[in-house]
Amino acid sequence: MELLKEKIVIEGKVLSDTVLKVDSFLNLQIDPLLMKEIGEEFANRFKDEVITKVLTIESSGIAPATMLGLTIGAPVVFARKKKSLTLSDNLYTSKVYSFTKKETNEISVSKDFLSPDDNVVIIDDFLANGEAVKGLLDIANQAGCKVVGVGIVIEKGFQDGGKVLRDQGIRVESLAIINSLNNGMVEFV
Amino acid sequence: MELLKEKIVIEGKVLSDTVLKVDSFLNLQIDPLLMKEIGEEFANRFKDEVITKVLTIESSGIAPATMLGLTIGAPVVFARKKKSLTLSDNLYTSKVYSFTKKETNEISVSKDFLSPDDNVVIIDDFLANGEAVKGLLDIANQAGCKVVGVGIVIEKGFQDGGKVLRDQGIRVESLAIINSLNNGMVEFV
Repeated sequence: MELLKEKIVIEGKVLSDTVLKVDSFLNLQIDPLLMKEIGEEFANRFKDEVITKVLTIESSGIAPATMLGLTIGAPVVFARKKKSLTLSDNLYTSKVYSFTKKETNEISVSKDFLSPDDNVVIIDDFLANGEAVKGLLDIANQAGCKVVGVGIVIEKGFQDGGKVLRDQGIRVESLAIINSLNNGMVEFV
Repeated sequence: MELLKEKIVIEGKVLSDTVLKVDSFLNLQIDPLLMKEIGEEFANRFKDEVITKVLTIESSGIAPATMLGLTIGAPVVFARKKKSLTLSDNLYTSKVYSFTKKETNEISVSKDFLSPDDNVVIIDDFLANGEAVKGLLDIANQAGCKVVGVGIVIEKGFQDGGKVLRDQGIRVESLAIINSLNNGMVEFV
């Protein structure tokens, strides 16, 4: 997706050979028009599938997932990263280790909003080691959903999450795949 | 906003005289089309103002704020509820007590995305005691922004957050104001 790649090159900040910050349009500030284009691109990539639910995880997955949901007319279910006291025990849960935050979160989704009748696309902002997506797949599996694929805004192609998922036969559609961040430069696949 | 009120009546769950859950379209699952209508309604309410930034707080504020941003062509800045290790010290912070979660969170916004040139609308899903909005107002104040108003999806009119804000001369636009949740019934103002 050329518009996204341009935005990454212009506004992204390469902090090391493995860390790219895109705070200005995705992680701390959201560019709603870009998110709309991203939602439409995900819809286009998965146009051969009937999708009944979009599944994502707070917080940076919510904007792109909502724009996909708007485009295809499907609700968005989002996993929360820890239990709220107002949530009942009516939850699917999974453990997700965050390499960025160096902590394990319990993620949870209400059982009310995923069922074996659902065809789900999983959406997330970044794919690196694939921990968050694995947690969401675990939850979709517990719910008995069919997962038609995974949509990622930015995949770090030099980390192994994408390979691990694709090797399992999971369809992964990434809108920008980064080959390397060496020498402070973003190089796409 | 009639569509929102209908949705609250049909899908909302009154758990007590003070607790209303709207998990099916706002807090655990998002109805993207309703969020779009909500974004357009906020834009309409504030159409006499020039808005340069929408300010909200993760997670349930993100979808309605992003739809307002899409409608008016403004970026959305969202406060995070605790520090991430990848964030720098370049932050505005404030303390917010959550009566729902019975805990105090530090909320933070990057200094990169709010400036004294900004005219800001603050968006949140619920207004009850007003703690989250007060934290966002504190951050906007630290940044030297002008706050043109506060947009709320659902205000609990029987709690004092709205009154406290309006008594300070802050413009509060709530799309649905609940007068009472007594006897398991939602009564609007």
